[in-house]
Amino acid sequence: MEKNIDDSLALHTDLYQINMAEAYWEDNIHTKKAVFELYFRKLPFGNGYAIFAGLERIIEYLQMFRFSESDLNYLKELGFQNDYVEFLRTVRFTGNVRAMKEGEVVFGNEPLLRIEAPLIEAQLIETALLNIVNYQTLIATKASRIKQVVGEQPVSEFGTRRAHELDAALWGTRAAYIGGFSSTSNVRAGKRFGLPVSGTHAHSFVQAYRDEYIAFHKYAKRHKDCVFLVDTYDTLKSGVPTAIKVAKELGSNINFLGIRLDSGDLAYLSKEARKLLDQAGFVDAKIFASNDLDEYTIMSLNAQGAKIDVWGVGTKAITAFDQPALGAVYKMVSIENDLGKMIDTIKVSSSPEKVTTPGLKKVYRIINNHTKKTEGDYITLNFEQPEKEAKLHMFHPVHTYIGKFATNFTAKDLHEDIFEQGKLVYERPRVQEIQSYADDQLNLLWEEYKRSLNPEEYPVVLSQACWDNKMKNIEEVKKANRQPTPL
Amino acid sequence: MEKNIDDSLALHTDLYQINMAEAYWEDNIHTKKAVFELYFRKLPFGNGYAIFAGLERIIEYLQMFRFSESDLNYLKELGFQNDYVEFLRTVRFTGNVRAMKEGEVVFGNEPLLRIEAPLIEAQLIETALLNIVNYQTLIATKASRIKQVVGEQPVSEFGTRRAHELDAALWGTRAAYIGGFSSTSNVRAGKRFGLPVSGTHAHSFVQAYRDEYIAFHKYAKRHKDCVFLVDTYDTLKSGVPTAIKVAKELGSNINFLGIRLDSGDLAYLSKEARKLLDQAGFVDAKIFASNDLDEYTIMSLNAQGAKIDVWGVGTKAITAFDQPALGAVYKMVSIENDLGKMIDTIKVSSSPEKVTTPGLKKVYRIINNHTKKTEGDYITLNFEQPEKEAKLHMFHPVHTYIGKFATNFTAKDLHEDIFEQGKLVYERPRVQEIQSYADDQLNLLWEEYKRSLNPEEYPVVLSQACWDNKMKNIEEVKKANRQPTPL
Repeated sequence: MEKNIDDSLALHTDLYQINMAEAYWEDNIHTKKAVFELYFRKLPFGNGYAIFAGLERIIEYLQMFRFSESDLNYLKELGFQNDYVEFLRTVRFTGNVRAMKEGEVVFGNEPLLRIEAPLIEAQLIETALLNIVNYQTLIATKASRIKQVVGEQPVSEFGTRRAHELDAALWGTRAAYIGGFSSTSNVRAGKRFGLPVSGTHAHSFVQAYRDEYIAFHKYAKRHKDCVFLVDTYDTLKSGVPTAIKVAKELGSNINFLGIRLDSGDLAYLSKEARKLLDQAGFVDAKIFASNDLDEYTIMSLNAQGAKIDVWGVGTKAITAFDQPALGAVYKMVSIENDLGKMIDTIKVSSSPEKVTTPGLKKVYRIINNHTKKTEGDYITLNFEQPEKEAKLHMFHPVHTYIGKFATNFTAKDLHEDIFEQGKLVYERPRVQEIQSYADDQLNLLWEEYKRSLNPEEYPVVLSQACWDNKMKNIEEVKKANRQPTPL
Repeated sequence: MEKNIDDSLALHTDLYQINMAEAYWEDNIHTKKAVFELYFRKLPFGNGYAIFAGLERIIEYLQMFRFSESDLNYLKELGFQNDYVEFLRTVRFTGNVRAMKEGEVVFGNEPLLRIEAPLIEAQLIETALLNIVNYQTLIATKASRIKQVVGEQPVSEFGTRRAHELDAALWGTRAAYIGGFSSTSNVRAGKRFGLPVSGTHAHSFVQAYRDEYIAFHKYAKRHKDCVFLVDTYDTLKSGVPTAIKVAKELGSNINFLGIRLDSGDLAYLSKEARKLLDQAGFVDAKIFASNDLDEYTIMSLNAQGAKIDVWGVGTKAITAFDQPALGAVYKMVSIENDLGKMIDTIKVSSSPEKVTTPGLKKVYRIINNHTKKTEGDYITLNFEQPEKEAKLHMFHPVHTYIGKFATNFTAKDLHEDIFEQGKLVYERPRVQEIQSYADDQLNLLWEEYKRSLNPEEYPVVLSQACWDNKMKNIEEVKKANRQPTPL
């Protein structure tokens, strides 16, 4: 590939966005203000919540958004006409963005991002925004599931070799850290995001010396902190005894942190290895384990009394193996009409859960002042101020007879202002702060929503005004001749 | 994130590689020549073959391989000492690489790449090579499975929004093209790789005008080639009739290519839409369909007589949804000893399929001169010349009593020289040539290996010399005291 071709990301979009943008521009409606919301409908992995991630990358993308010279030339080659291509040269992102903070605990049908921008800008950025949020939120959520199972024990991400190309390894391991992982093996991610990095040595190292005893000694020569990989030949007959022997010989010249198991039956091997280590007096040495682990295998190993102290998780987390896609969508909820007035829009569907909720909205978390736990999330129209209400009626947005009243609560607006008229107004937290934030938010959640299997459904409700507005819009659509709906 | 930080890829590796490299360097064995092979053991998706992809990206990576100033500073921050870090500053890739061509039809246990390089270089590049090959080969294979099912019909890739971050969308869609897809929606991939791009408009376009009739007209104003998306409101009552009406009104002012369905029952809707189009005289108008398609759904739709002409596949291909990871590994097969002689290495395991095959090897495809079909692949030690043999004994590498003799064959060396002493010596084909190459190679395969479900196992065998060498190495390992093996 020619290395001199710049690689701006403005073309990282589906062709149809550029087609539609052209029609909007031709029709001179491209500068009309439009509001889009990005959200997913269904939580992944059967989990009771998700952890939002992706905002950092989106900020970079929107700040840099512009078509490069080579992009414009390419569009001409595709047959786009000069006048439109010249217009595209001028496009920057000039809109407003409100979004969840990274690390926020989020649920289905909540706007994760809200984009208010000239129609053409909002349209052109759709694909990249979905690409970023879908993946990073998926991985942060998967990591959080695993973290729920390991509790206080550290878990390290090392799935780079199985990730879906380089960006997934890089941003995925950051997302895993946000979800609660303690470190990454990916050194580039460590450098770029300031994540703790971890790693020892591989089987090939032992192979290169053809002898564990020599290999461990060679390793220890430059590395004071030693974790020896003990399963290259025979874990209990060779690996662990050799590690113990070398640790004893080197004494205080090294910090013998422990051993690592990467194959075989981790429950049995860890219990036996623990005995050997304890008998040798290394009661503080840790047992690190890896080998196709996920939350289910970890739960099962722990149920069998495995003596594992530190977990390494690769493939299953970085690929979100059991559900490798999150289905977030990006829907128009409002658009400026010819008179300059914002008009709410709705997309109806024969599936009730696919009907969009029209209008510019906010999301509030309703936190009980007494229990300090959250009662649910409350989606309002933009102008509402639930923080000033004494009592909120929280009813199910589909089965409206199910509901409750909240009193003595704090209503927390979950959106932050990120961009105002194209200008970044948000101070980006460090990734460690994001991880802590996620942890704090999870503490506001009752345990029933955090169970790995069959969690309770967390209440995400519409305010009365928001619900009424949705019904009004559905009625209007039903009346319009060209918009029949099966509802 | 600071935009002024360079982003070299040398740190795109697991920390343990840098740890091991340090020990090699300290021990002054880092320049010893080592040979590593990259291969997977098990074909993905239960498929009968895989399509190799990733070489293009690997070439770029190896050519650019070097630690940047900020990389080196970061390594010092991590605690690596100056002397080693200064040594790393000088590291470039200086080795030899032989590899399968992209688009090659490949199987389990065949070396896809063979790296001969100073030990430290071969070790440092492992993670990135696996990261790239695992993903791209997975996607090329998934795409090929889908292509097998659609036959001559075009299939377009448009999974960018669900891909695992940006690189996966970019390189994944290239891999899908190699596997037989006809176009991509990702404009950046079109620009970078010269792939055909395709796309029409989205539901939001119709929503913006709140009326299909107006929206289709507006679209057609700038787009001569028209495919109208007909399922925004009601496909058969509104969408298709409106598309027909607009197409009639505009007549020869547009090329009415057809309609696109993106929801609902695609079998029923396509059959009914076909009738409406035919009745209106648009017998050449195509029906484009998408909506969570994969090879299984397409087979099932075709079995029901769906009238779909062009397929759009997103999530299920770009994420390899049903098996989102390929387990390729990178194993040392030979290393220079203290006397400068190459010594074969082996990794034993209690699982027979995990025992590595020692030594520098080649892979030959044995093509029957009469049938022009392949008899199987034949792995030899480097010096062997099966093309000069009249008769080959091809026996199963585990169940050795299963076998056959090949005569009247052509033995084709599947590896190309890519790098020689760090210099690129390979002329890279264009992606269209790669796609054709894959297609041609698949034509050499009997149909029984290409079945989507329960294909026959393709023979990948070891030459007698290669098998004998493996047995000898196993025996030696068994004798060595510190390398007990359960075999």
